Amino acid sequence: MPLPSMPAPAGPFDDAGREAVYRAIHTRRDVRSQFRPDQIADEVLNRLLMAAHHAPSVGFMQPWNFILIRSAAVKDQIRAAFQTANVEAKAMFSGPQRALYSELKLQGISEAPVNLCITCDRTRGGPVVLGRTHNRDMDLYSTVCAAQNLWLAARAEGIGVGWVSIFRDADLRHILGLPDHVVPVAYLCLGHVTELYQEPELQARGWRQRLPLEDLLYGERWGGAV
Amino acid sequence: MPLPSMPAPAGPFDDAGREAVYRAIHTRRDVRSQFRPDQIADEVLNRLLMAAHHAPSVGFMQPWNFILIRSAAVKDQIRAAFQTANVEAKAMFSGPQRALYSELKLQGISEAPVNLCITCDRTRGGPVVLGRTHNRDMDLYSTVCAAQNLWLAARAEGIGVGWVSIFRDADLRHILGLPDHVVPVAYLCLGHVTELYQEPELQARGWRQRLPLEDLLYGERWGGAV
Repeated sequence: MPLPSMPAPAGPFDDAGREAVYRAIHTRRDVRSQFRPDQIADEVLNRLLMAAHHAPSVGFMQPWNFILIRSAAVKDQIRAAFQTANVEAKAMFSGPQRALYSELKLQGISEAPVNLCITCDRTRGGPVVLGRTHNRDMDLYSTVCAAQNLWLAARAEGIGVGWVSIFRDADLRHILGLPDHVVPVAYLCLGHVTELYQEPELQARGWRQRLPLEDLLYGERWGGAV
Repeated sequence: MPLPSMPAPAGPFDDAGREAVYRAIHTRRDVRSQFRPDQIADEVLNRLLMAAHHAPSVGFMQPWNFILIRSAAVKDQIRAAFQTANVEAKAMFSGPQRALYSELKLQGISEAPVNLCITCDRTRGGPVVLGRTHNRDMDLYSTVCAAQNLWLAARAEGIGVGWVSIFRDADLRHILGLPDHVVPVAYLCLGHVTELYQEPELQARGWRQRLPLEDLLYGERWGGAV
């Protein structure tokens, strides 16, 4: 039995295991309308949070906290904050884009049985954090990795996740009582889903199309041939 | 056959599929020393890039580009940039921490057959992007999701990934020829691995321990009981 600190054999997964990982990645959707009202079992929610907690973090800083929101009263405040910001957002578009924007459902705050705010404590680990010496935002990036881990684990559990980003920062901070050194990185709505779009909803609704991967690839430097 | 734009049935994965997703999440490591020299097959690399390209992105912005680096000359420049920054980084620590820091191997730039810089084009999608109206950094967060997708897919493929973050921003921009509106979000080293640490290397080496998940959970608001 090797010590836990020793490297251990770790090759590729078998075909079925690989396929499952890619299925989570390729069929994950940003959910707004498909939430079912049934509660998420504690053991499932715990597995999702553990998945988030096992994200990579700069200097093993683990800068995240997880605020679970189930109260209708708090959700009402959050939804009102979204609506305030969304009126401002809508006004930034014009013409047919504004009309289409108005038709999109951009959040499922009240319908999702669980809301989850993943925050980043920028002071955790002290003033100097390994790997964060030259890019101060690496802690925010680590926190995003936690959100993405949770999102993929949720897909495998049949739980849909929707990331809501249309808030005034001050509103979210006020409602959730966040200290100044804590940044709300991801506000997520979670709930069981029995169906999902087969492509991103914004593509299905004609907002924007997927770019060809080959147009995004460079070799050796920006603009270089692959 | 439902139209691609219609929701389709999408429940939980079977036990083996779920286990594979969690295995990718829990056994993923930040690799610096375990890279093998054999090349990554084009089809494998393409699957990894497709996984990254299927990350969630704000307003379906897809702000990422992928710069593949295989040339020893470019890697040499990148490694030199790392070394410059790492001397500065080391000096920020003191006492026993500095001694331990000096012993850590923090990059495998030259050993990894492929390096990959994932960038974020902050102008893609025009001046107003759906979902980015109130948090300008959502495009950076989307790009981090692409990196994390790739990292988990790589685990399933037996490919190790190491994220190197100790660079002066200007050095990386200069070497890779990045325009001002493009941010280098993740500089990754990729290569086959046949063994991995069973816990994060920084934990194995006594740098920092994993925090108990229950200490990171709040209910309804910051500091609230779950």
